[in-house]
Amino acid sequence: MNYLPISFAEKFSLFDDAWQPKVVAEMNDYQFKLARLEGEFVWHQHADSDETFIVIEGELTIKFRDGVVQLVAGELFVVPKGVEHKPIAAKEAKVLLIEPRGVVNTGDLDEGNRRAENDVWI
Amino acid sequence: MNYLPISFAEKFSLFDDAWQPKVVAEMNDYQFKLARLEGEFVWHQHADSDETFIVIEGELTIKFRDGVVQLVAGELFVVPKGVEHKPIAAKEAKVLLIEPRGVVNTGDLDEGNRRAENDVWI
Repeated sequence: MNYLPISFAEKFSLFDDAWQPKVVAEMNDYQFKLARLEGEFVWHQHADSDETFIVIEGELTIKFRDGVVQLVAGELFVVPKGVEHKPIAAKEAKVLLIEPRGVVNTGDLDEGNRRAENDVWI
Repeated sequence: MNYLPISFAEKFSLFDDAWQPKVVAEMNDYQFKLARLEGEFVWHQHADSDETFIVIEGELTIKFRDGVVQLVAGELFVVPKGVEHKPIAAKEAKVLLIEPRGVVNTGDLDEGNRRAENDVWI
């Protein structure tokens, strides 16, 4: 039989909402999530896990309390666990996130309108 | 300070050997590895872990005992643990592999000239 790969472009064509990660695949207990990022996110951290960002299209800035990293398409950055960070995209960026199942986008923050429903597949 | 992202293109410019994955980053106990694939690899499986392939450039075929998957750039496939597979690239493909630290490229095979040195960083 022919198995089907996951096409990032095809999956991105299925949603428009920003800051709402969509799960597209799992590897062991990790999830691959696609997200459209535009504007400024909130400062937060993930106490129990590193978090990987891979930029698929556009440009992404991640601020830290002690610095910043700038990513363009074809670049990867791993935010260490426990490190406060604030993603910012001046224009829309399409991003692949990789992190353990169960990690919430706003990390340690209990509330706030940036908190996305978790484990939403597309 | 300015932190530096990992650029796939820059890392690929640093090596030419095929079937020799190079680690470029870690997330918890997982590794991100870049590899140039060209020709046919050996049938093998990884008993303890799923393995993720993301094609960065070119085309990749992964054969299974019961089928096949064809990937182009911008596509992802997770090979489930314990599933025999044989990667094939008619022309060179540039691939991002994601799997736990310690996973050997030839999986359950004890020997063979396709076995790459593990945990080589670039």
